[in-house]
Amino acid sequence: MICELISVGTELLLGNIVNTNAQFLAEQCALLGLTMYYQSTVGDNPERLSQTITQALDRSDVVILTGGLGPTEDDLTKEICAQVMGFPLAEDPHTRQRIEEYFKNNIYQEIPDNNWKQAVIPQGALVLDNDNGTAPGLILEKDGKRAILLPGPPGELIPLFTHQVAPYLEKLRPEIIRSQMVKICGVGESQVEDKLLDLIDQQTNPTIATYAKTGEVHLRVTASASSQEEAEKLIKPVVKEIKKRFGDAVYSTKEEESLEAAVVRLLKKHELTVTTAESCTGGMLAARLVNVPGVSDVFREGFVTYSNKAKRRLLDVGKGTLKKYGAVSEQTAREMAMGGVFATGADICVATTGIAGPGGGTEDKPVGLVYISCILRDEVTVQRFQFKGNREKVREQTVVKALDLLRRSILASYR
Amino acid sequence: MICELISVGTELLLGNIVNTNAQFLAEQCALLGLTMYYQSTVGDNPERLSQTITQALDRSDVVILTGGLGPTEDDLTKEICAQVMGFPLAEDPHTRQRIEEYFKNNIYQEIPDNNWKQAVIPQGALVLDNDNGTAPGLILEKDGKRAILLPGPPGELIPLFTHQVAPYLEKLRPEIIRSQMVKICGVGESQVEDKLLDLIDQQTNPTIATYAKTGEVHLRVTASASSQEEAEKLIKPVVKEIKKRFGDAVYSTKEEESLEAAVVRLLKKHELTVTTAESCTGGMLAARLVNVPGVSDVFREGFVTYSNKAKRRLLDVGKGTLKKYGAVSEQTAREMAMGGVFATGADICVATTGIAGPGGGTEDKPVGLVYISCILRDEVTVQRFQFKGNREKVREQTVVKALDLLRRSILASYR
Repeated sequence: MICELISVGTELLLGNIVNTNAQFLAEQCALLGLTMYYQSTVGDNPERLSQTITQALDRSDVVILTGGLGPTEDDLTKEICAQVMGFPLAEDPHTRQRIEEYFKNNIYQEIPDNNWKQAVIPQGALVLDNDNGTAPGLILEKDGKRAILLPGPPGELIPLFTHQVAPYLEKLRPEIIRSQMVKICGVGESQVEDKLLDLIDQQTNPTIATYAKTGEVHLRVTASASSQEEAEKLIKPVVKEIKKRFGDAVYSTKEEESLEAAVVRLLKKHELTVTTAESCTGGMLAARLVNVPGVSDVFREGFVTYSNKAKRRLLDVGKGTLKKYGAVSEQTAREMAMGGVFATGADICVATTGIAGPGGGTEDKPVGLVYISCILRDEVTVQRFQFKGNREKVREQTVVKALDLLRRSILASYR
Repeated sequence: MICELISVGTELLLGNIVNTNAQFLAEQCALLGLTMYYQSTVGDNPERLSQTITQALDRSDVVILTGGLGPTEDDLTKEICAQVMGFPLAEDPHTRQRIEEYFKNNIYQEIPDNNWKQAVIPQGALVLDNDNGTAPGLILEKDGKRAILLPGPPGELIPLFTHQVAPYLEKLRPEIIRSQMVKICGVGESQVEDKLLDLIDQQTNPTIATYAKTGEVHLRVTASASSQEEAEKLIKPVVKEIKKRFGDAVYSTKEEESLEAAVVRLLKKHELTVTTAESCTGGMLAARLVNVPGVSDVFREGFVTYSNKAKRRLLDVGKGTLKKYGAVSEQTAREMAMGGVFATGADICVATTGIAGPGGGTEDKPVGLVYISCILRDEVTVQRFQFKGNREKVREQTVVKALDLLRRSILASYR
């Protein structure tokens, strides 16, 4: 079944707000096994709104409209949609009563007149009671087409969808959809695609979708079947094959597990503690680790040593090392990591030093040059990178590579 | 002039990512005085993509397409758009060379074959060099219609738009549009709007638009006129009035100046150095400061003291203090800041300690409770906050409040 989103609101066309509703609804529809080909955003204009709704109902089975259900003059979604689908409007006593109660419980003196507009609904529409506002959700069914109208505020839309729309849509669904994530780090998107070309070419069910993140590629394997077991049986061999092709580069197969969470999981598994010694990343690496709840078992402290003095005093980097090789060098990266372990007694230290730019680059040490080092027991690894992009991008890439080096160092030492 | 957005990508239709590009581009287009009636999102499907582009070019003057310029099989935006507008495709030597250089300076051994696809461009198109990726931006002009193709990753799209597309669009405009940003920190959005209600109600030219960010509100005052001088003359008194109403809460009137950049500017102005002592923020605060190029003059080192042991050893927080009041307390926050100054000799230290959640909350110390302290000379200020939201939100809000406390402490001591 094909569904489509229409977001109504001038604030979206002006860029005053980010359309998080579209992301929420798209994700929910995908999880419900609905196919989405289009999303559109349009303002509170009768002609354009009517034309957009007409087109959507023509090419999709289910059209979800958000926004434009408010009490004001330029809230038109309900009126235009009813007009397009040929539903007469009439006041709904039940909804009128709910609005009265809503205001009674909301310390308002009297009810603004224009709110009664929200008690008027398309006759024959399914009314979804809204516990968090005065605009009810509405479902209009006609000739096998369905329009679902939801208020724009996420605090009203999300509960309405979760508790009333999702169960309604689930009943319409012919088959079960299941999907499995495979998350890869340290391989470029196009290289991943190259390695999977044969699988992607021959894909029908399950399908493989790739998503590029900074320094990561996420693969979603999705299968549809008549039962959950069957869907999972279709997914399993494909995931197994992907893991075989990418080996250690696969850091997780859990939808919700981030790279840092996978790293923390590994640290906990082997009862290792880690500390950080950061120059160019300036705390970003530690902050990524601290994103993970319960990180305190494995991460207790970290150093941001931006100046040479700090590298010397806090990490005991040799004065001669800094003088001879400079702060951005393999030798300094190595001594930073060793110093971090010595200063804290942690099992591992990851250190970063580089030239994030825009200034500070030279002929032989250009902007984007970064050294990352990791010490685990007496094993020190130092990697050299030449990153592209602005200060922010260089630092983000550095953090991802640092987390990946930490992860691979642990894997290597326990093989 | 009417412009329209088309976002291309299955990840949007599946709800894997929020479409922040649409918000950015909509805001920028409004800023450039362009009218936007429609935004749409479509997947990597030839028929649907072609139909969507055709419709957009039919009803709008400028169509901005984002995404689908990658090297993979299902990246089709360029090919389909060229086909719809009748541009033949050919390899562009200049772009091919840039791709070679990109990979030479990058972390990959050899260039994946499919990347050469990105060197093929519609003949006669304007090529916009992309310094942050391998897909160039493209501008196709035909019969008074314009299609602007940009890569999807914000790190590539934003610089391309800012430095190349915006100036291009500016030239197409009849009258001059100028705008001035006023950035406010430490006042809620609704409070800001209340204080400006009269100005917003009577606004025609210039107009005032409000944008809420985490812990900040940005106001954009926009005027259109026949000359730049005239536009600026319209803007000036309004900005002056806003600054008068919000006083110290206004941290910048520069479009490009972030909160951390404004803080670093203040530190440099008064020749002050700062250090950080972070528990719940775990390095985010230091990382925000290090976002600012040239921060090394004022920031040399920072501490991430996540465990009590680390607070004691690195910041000399009293064992008794931690025992009696706990790690999340006014007393610990105070001693962390004092210890940071003592350990580094910096003029200022900002410290954070709190319960970011999801675990760790109690009856009298619930999740979201955060103490932030700042010491400047012998003046210690401690603020207590009870934030709403998940772990990430609590930590983000903490960082913004910490930067604002730092800023206001400096302003106060030099008044």
